[in-house]
Amino acid sequence: MDKYSNLTKNAAGRTVPTIINGGEHIPFQGVGKYKPTGRKFGPKISSCADYPDDGNKTVENLKAALINSGLKDGMTISTHHHFRNGDLIANQIFDIANELGVKDLRWYPSASFPCQEGLIKYLEDGTINRIEGSMNGPLGRFTSQGKMKGMSILRSHGGRYQAVQDGEVQIDIAVIAAPTSDPFGNANGVDGPAACGLLGFALADSQYADKVIVVTDNLVPFPCIPWQIHGNYVDYVVKVDKVGLPERIISGTTQITKSPDRLLIAEITSKFCEAAGIIYDGFSYQAGAGGTSLSIGNYFGEILRKNKWKARFVRAGSNKYPVEMLEGGLIDYILDGQTFDLDGVRSMRENPNHVNTSPFTSYNYHGKGNFASMIDVVILGATEVDVNFNANVVTHSDGYMLHGIGGWQNCLFSKCTILPIPLFRDRIPVIREEVTTLVGPGELIDVIVTERGLAINPLRQDLIEKTKNSGLPIKTIGQLKDEAEAICGKPENIVLDDELVAAIKWVDGTVIDAVRKVPT
Amino acid sequence: MDKYSNLTKNAAGRTVPTIINGGEHIPFQGVGKYKPTGRKFGPKISSCADYPDDGNKTVENLKAALINSGLKDGMTISTHHHFRNGDLIANQIFDIANELGVKDLRWYPSASFPCQEGLIKYLEDGTINRIEGSMNGPLGRFTSQGKMKGMSILRSHGGRYQAVQDGEVQIDIAVIAAPTSDPFGNANGVDGPAACGLLGFALADSQYADKVIVVTDNLVPFPCIPWQIHGNYVDYVVKVDKVGLPERIISGTTQITKSPDRLLIAEITSKFCEAAGIIYDGFSYQAGAGGTSLSIGNYFGEILRKNKWKARFVRAGSNKYPVEMLEGGLIDYILDGQTFDLDGVRSMRENPNHVNTSPFTSYNYHGKGNFASMIDVVILGATEVDVNFNANVVTHSDGYMLHGIGGWQNCLFSKCTILPIPLFRDRIPVIREEVTTLVGPGELIDVIVTERGLAINPLRQDLIEKTKNSGLPIKTIGQLKDEAEAICGKPENIVLDDELVAAIKWVDGTVIDAVRKVPT
Repeated sequence: MDKYSNLTKNAAGRTVPTIINGGEHIPFQGVGKYKPTGRKFGPKISSCADYPDDGNKTVENLKAALINSGLKDGMTISTHHHFRNGDLIANQIFDIANELGVKDLRWYPSASFPCQEGLIKYLEDGTINRIEGSMNGPLGRFTSQGKMKGMSILRSHGGRYQAVQDGEVQIDIAVIAAPTSDPFGNANGVDGPAACGLLGFALADSQYADKVIVVTDNLVPFPCIPWQIHGNYVDYVVKVDKVGLPERIISGTTQITKSPDRLLIAEITSKFCEAAGIIYDGFSYQAGAGGTSLSIGNYFGEILRKNKWKARFVRAGSNKYPVEMLEGGLIDYILDGQTFDLDGVRSMRENPNHVNTSPFTSYNYHGKGNFASMIDVVILGATEVDVNFNANVVTHSDGYMLHGIGGWQNCLFSKCTILPIPLFRDRIPVIREEVTTLVGPGELIDVIVTERGLAINPLRQDLIEKTKNSGLPIKTIGQLKDEAEAICGKPENIVLDDELVAAIKWVDGTVIDAVRKVPT
Repeated sequence: MDKYSNLTKNAAGRTVPTIINGGEHIPFQGVGKYKPTGRKFGPKISSCADYPDDGNKTVENLKAALINSGLKDGMTISTHHHFRNGDLIANQIFDIANELGVKDLRWYPSASFPCQEGLIKYLEDGTINRIEGSMNGPLGRFTSQGKMKGMSILRSHGGRYQAVQDGEVQIDIAVIAAPTSDPFGNANGVDGPAACGLLGFALADSQYADKVIVVTDNLVPFPCIPWQIHGNYVDYVVKVDKVGLPERIISGTTQITKSPDRLLIAEITSKFCEAAGIIYDGFSYQAGAGGTSLSIGNYFGEILRKNKWKARFVRAGSNKYPVEMLEGGLIDYILDGQTFDLDGVRSMRENPNHVNTSPFTSYNYHGKGNFASMIDVVILGATEVDVNFNANVVTHSDGYMLHGIGGWQNCLFSKCTILPIPLFRDRIPVIREEVTTLVGPGELIDVIVTERGLAINPLRQDLIEKTKNSGLPIKTIGQLKDEAEAICGKPENIVLDDELVAAIKWVDGTVIDAVRKVPT
């Protein structure tokens, strides 16, 4: 089977295949243009007659569970990434598959991390045909070099839910690492020695996979409360000694930046939001866990405090900073998709206003609305932005694919999307004539903030109007690009192979771009 | 269209149609015998592009929401019954349908109540073709008299979820009365002036209906927490002055019985459970809200207290009695499917160990297990029991269909099912040669307790063995029947019409019996 074929130019002018790993895919048609006409995927109907009356679904180990689940060549195996770089289960699954001589598996993680570097040997020996999902670090490098047998497909968190819901990706076996579970398979992420917060990334997997295995190191008597995963979707439960390393869930710097440039970017961003009237009593925002984002959250907190306002909700990736704001009465609710530190985990366990969410509630574009578009302002990163505000979050300017999409594409639908980014990194300008990989269409990106000024998307005349007398260093994006190039020089065009290694999906399941092989 | 055709004898020896209202239905094949082979129903895929970015789905009134939902002839409209006899919305829906001249609707409530008697005029004038769901009181009488145009189909709570999940019943428009909602449609039953506890009976409707309307009298800013119903499934939100009368949710007597006979039945039941070793530290039970059941719960509490034991969980229909036990530390968890009084509502709102459940978690037979089979003992009622322990809960011995199935069939799967029933009611024996309507197969019914003794199903030799020296008045079911007839005389066989008015579904979607017209 060819990795891909049938190249075509999509609505963004990007050349993409319509056949990938033998399956048909629709090219990107523009934001909001593609209208699905089908029906959601219908998993096989089960019968209680085939499950133990006493609800005890435990089997002796993961190998037994995988064998009972019918593990065989060509299957799709899914995992979640709530343990982030502390995941212990994915490697075990493919060790077992390799031991059993199973080949050509598709691994469908909600994200992959450096701790899974060991899977490269299985990508090489054919145990795994391909990874569909983000490939941070070593797996991304491997893929970028054209070494993966199949073609990768990268999806946002919302796009991953959409693909499963719509039947584009049919999961044969979902393995859900759970900090706490009962023998029936009700499971949560807030309790137990390996508490990682929540299990929302595994929701689609539990609902739609043919077979579902819960793996836990904290087996409690029925009922496991709360049940973030419903045992009614679960086939087998496995008790292990250690399900994950919660100390490694920590993401990003998790500390407010001390870099003067980044502090300046954070300050300009928050001043812009204040000047544009985005911050008000009852507003909402989403910011990541990087140093700049955390600093922006801090500035938002100061503005709220000063005005005696409260944020109605914060969408998170939570860590101690939003948790402090929640506990300090500056926020009504945290709507949390993944906890980024143990303060986040504790808060979610203890505070009913720290609510676990899922890609279904927050991000799925093929739902009857989602939370992402309701947020007043979202702060995101990017590896590159072009003069039309198109942005890239997956590849670096050297062509290497080192980051996943995460919720990034989904968040672009907020009422105001701001990318606070340095003007250059390692003397390489971040604002480009054209992005290496198109991940986010410029029409959804409203403001670029750098240490040398900010640029507002001309589509947002309302924001331009509101901030024109703010005294903020407002420039055009062309000006910012010129400033960077005046300092660093005009960046050379990189030369990439024609061979494609990965497809980038848009939130609606269409193909927005493809990633080219890096010459080696 | 004929109401039904193609009569056949099912595995229980009951004559049932296989074509009902033009659709095919499978005759009952025995407990656990029918194995589904299909896939779950796939609702249409939606797109966020068709929903407001700001998440505001409110429309001016229910009529506008129904028109926007495309209300037309022949559609299936669903409602839930968490307000029980305090529902205010179902009547309004059909008033609007009638006003718009819409005909031949199928009403698919999770249960109906006397407060909906006003719908009889729409059953008569053809606005409503039929009700599929329970018909307590006046609607049952109307149906029993053969006056409904279509044939009714009665399902258990679990069977209702199963029918929707499996695509047997496709809901066009679900209307969900919600005590609290946000403009996005996230909704719950615990908050607001009309708090009724939970919305679990509307879960399937929200997940699988083509269009979903949430009606509330307490519209709060996004996010409505907890969200028992996910706004991501909701199309329209309607604000009304009053969504329901929570004071009318009260079910049954809600008081412990004072009748000496019933107290005796309760005492024998609890003594039997104690003697049979069913009650232990960590056991679980389910009891209804009638006077006898409440009294049995009280006895269970005494046994727990005496032994310094705790029940792990109680499945409920909650009211003040199990709530007191939870608050008094006699129970770890209440797993609650519907609140039967305002103490239940308060407890569910305040106590994280009082957990809202749904027919999906508790009762759906076409899941990967459910909670019902994990319960140590369940206490149920019956209108009739026959000498083979088959039971009826839908019709009276005069043939009138006056009760819904509720969770009754689903609960039969518990480890021990006990029916505490009076030996006779109004001088009519309850134990019969044959039940008027077969609702529960005798093989699942373990013990019958009457004021004159108890009978253990011969299939349960383990229970017979454990209690043989208990000193309890253990008899055969034949003996109990004879005793009743010695007092009341042998009941006359009632003569019913050949015409069928309703089909009774088993938990797996097969037809276990049909209800005959009562001669008028």
